[in-house]
Amino acid sequence: MARTHYLPEDVVHYAWDHTLPPALEVDSGDVVVYQLREVTDNQISPRSTAVDLGRLDWNRLYPLGGPVFVRGARPGDVLEVEILDLHPLGWAWSAILPGFGLLEADFTEPYLHIWDLSPGDHTVLRPDIRIPLDPFCGTMGVAPAEKGPFPVMPPGKFGGNMDTRHLTCGTRLLLPVQVDGALFSVGDGHAAQGDGEVCVTGMECPMHAALRFHVRRDRSIAEPQFTTPGPLTTKYDRRGYHATMGVHPDLMEAARNAVRHMIDHLVHTCRLSREQAYILCSVAVDLKISECVDKPNWIVSAYVPLAIFVER
Amino acid sequence: MARTHYLPEDVVHYAWDHTLPPALEVDSGDVVVYQLREVTDNQISPRSTAVDLGRLDWNRLYPLGGPVFVRGARPGDVLEVEILDLHPLGWAWSAILPGFGLLEADFTEPYLHIWDLSPGDHTVLRPDIRIPLDPFCGTMGVAPAEKGPFPVMPPGKFGGNMDTRHLTCGTRLLLPVQVDGALFSVGDGHAAQGDGEVCVTGMECPMHAALRFHVRRDRSIAEPQFTTPGPLTTKYDRRGYHATMGVHPDLMEAARNAVRHMIDHLVHTCRLSREQAYILCSVAVDLKISECVDKPNWIVSAYVPLAIFVER
Repeated sequence: MARTHYLPEDVVHYAWDHTLPPALEVDSGDVVVYQLREVTDNQISPRSTAVDLGRLDWNRLYPLGGPVFVRGARPGDVLEVEILDLHPLGWAWSAILPGFGLLEADFTEPYLHIWDLSPGDHTVLRPDIRIPLDPFCGTMGVAPAEKGPFPVMPPGKFGGNMDTRHLTCGTRLLLPVQVDGALFSVGDGHAAQGDGEVCVTGMECPMHAALRFHVRRDRSIAEPQFTTPGPLTTKYDRRGYHATMGVHPDLMEAARNAVRHMIDHLVHTCRLSREQAYILCSVAVDLKISECVDKPNWIVSAYVPLAIFVER
Repeated sequence: MARTHYLPEDVVHYAWDHTLPPALEVDSGDVVVYQLREVTDNQISPRSTAVDLGRLDWNRLYPLGGPVFVRGARPGDVLEVEILDLHPLGWAWSAILPGFGLLEADFTEPYLHIWDLSPGDHTVLRPDIRIPLDPFCGTMGVAPAEKGPFPVMPPGKFGGNMDTRHLTCGTRLLLPVQVDGALFSVGDGHAAQGDGEVCVTGMECPMHAALRFHVRRDRSIAEPQFTTPGPLTTKYDRRGYHATMGVHPDLMEAARNAVRHMIDHLVHTCRLSREQAYILCSVAVDLKISECVDKPNWIVSAYVPLAIFVER
């Protein structure tokens, strides 16, 4: 009989390490309910300013709930994580952090934006720019096989800090189990984010989450996979998109140029500051690889959904 | 009074060159109707086999219709190309071409697939794999400012061989004019293609096209941009997606691994040959940059729409 477990809220860890004691032991088919801290472990609050970004204790970033030991999971198995429920808890923040982000060379000063999520299903950058929420957890992973501890920021074949916006409710994430019991952990709630997470933060928020675990032995995978239950962007795509292209022999530079053109476009058409535009790109603009085969120039395109611009 | 022009079918050119004489002169607001040859200039036909791929005269690739001289267009202006109508003309081909494609190291033998487009709105790889058509022109560009001729394969800031799947009907493409009259050309019809065009061909087809041109001076752009009239993938996304991830410090290698995992998935779940699976990736799988900021590992994800797998 499948059970529902409640992860103790005071149990978090800040690194991947397969020697950590499990916070819970569950059976395949069980559900775990989490109340997850935002990614700075409450160092940022709705009253914070950009000055607080410079005072962050980076050893306390990525407080993860777990690890959860799933009985029967063995290396080579697949841990299926069914995302049952996600809800951001009232507020979020996004920031420009010097030394990080796709355009770290262009944006060198700290900048903080606090999002009011009290409407529940959307937030506004300005009254005329309304962004639907589409929550997911930026970090979901199993413990790596190698001896840790490992920092949480880089994702890996074990999953981890994947920051992949389509890991929303109803999606089934598949992770390759590395150690007995899988030792699954989760955190880094995002209320919304575009493909790319270009400024290095989504809408970083405390998050309620409920996940169901299944151990699967019918397949083997080398890196994470997932299946979504339906269309990806129905909250965003009603009015189409404006897209900017970067054409370049290096994919990353193509991405940078596409985002630079999108920032110019948003500054020009919406009279946003460049910092606001960069953050809007991170939370609402999608990066697609349009082509990566027409030697020697590749194209990355940045797509902004026009539905976020309120018709007056 | 805006006019409709018909581009002579026998006028094509095979390189970008601003010294080419215009095939037509039109006014801003005019429409041009094209009947475009497929990308090999009729060297591949519905009766071709893989052997014919080795005999291609590469100097005859990319027959482009044009150039069209748009009166009043000057360097620094924007040429808006409104895509009014597109229709593939009955058949298409996709191929693995040795020395090209994202996985050129993995696929070294020529392979040709001919698509029957007679149903009009879809085609099948097998009776149980049905792919909706979503046509666009792979190549649309203005003549470069620099003295040519330049080969057509690499796209540039002038547009050209952008192979961008969302340049479908109703989309308005914006191109930065480089020379007086813009000298716009078009070709390389694709009946369908995924973001990435990973095997280097989409569904390559002869195409009927109608485009309206406007000269715009209200903005200046450095590289192409476009605006779509509505959601991007409504023909594909009804039943959700299965996605495979590549996690890697190099974006291109992340893309390669994501596609390798998708090929394994398609071979395993659909019992396709590896060549069929690679071609299916090129015509129906989308590459998204999930994150490009979590140093030092980036994630590219490959998404296959589940709607193409016919429910039995």
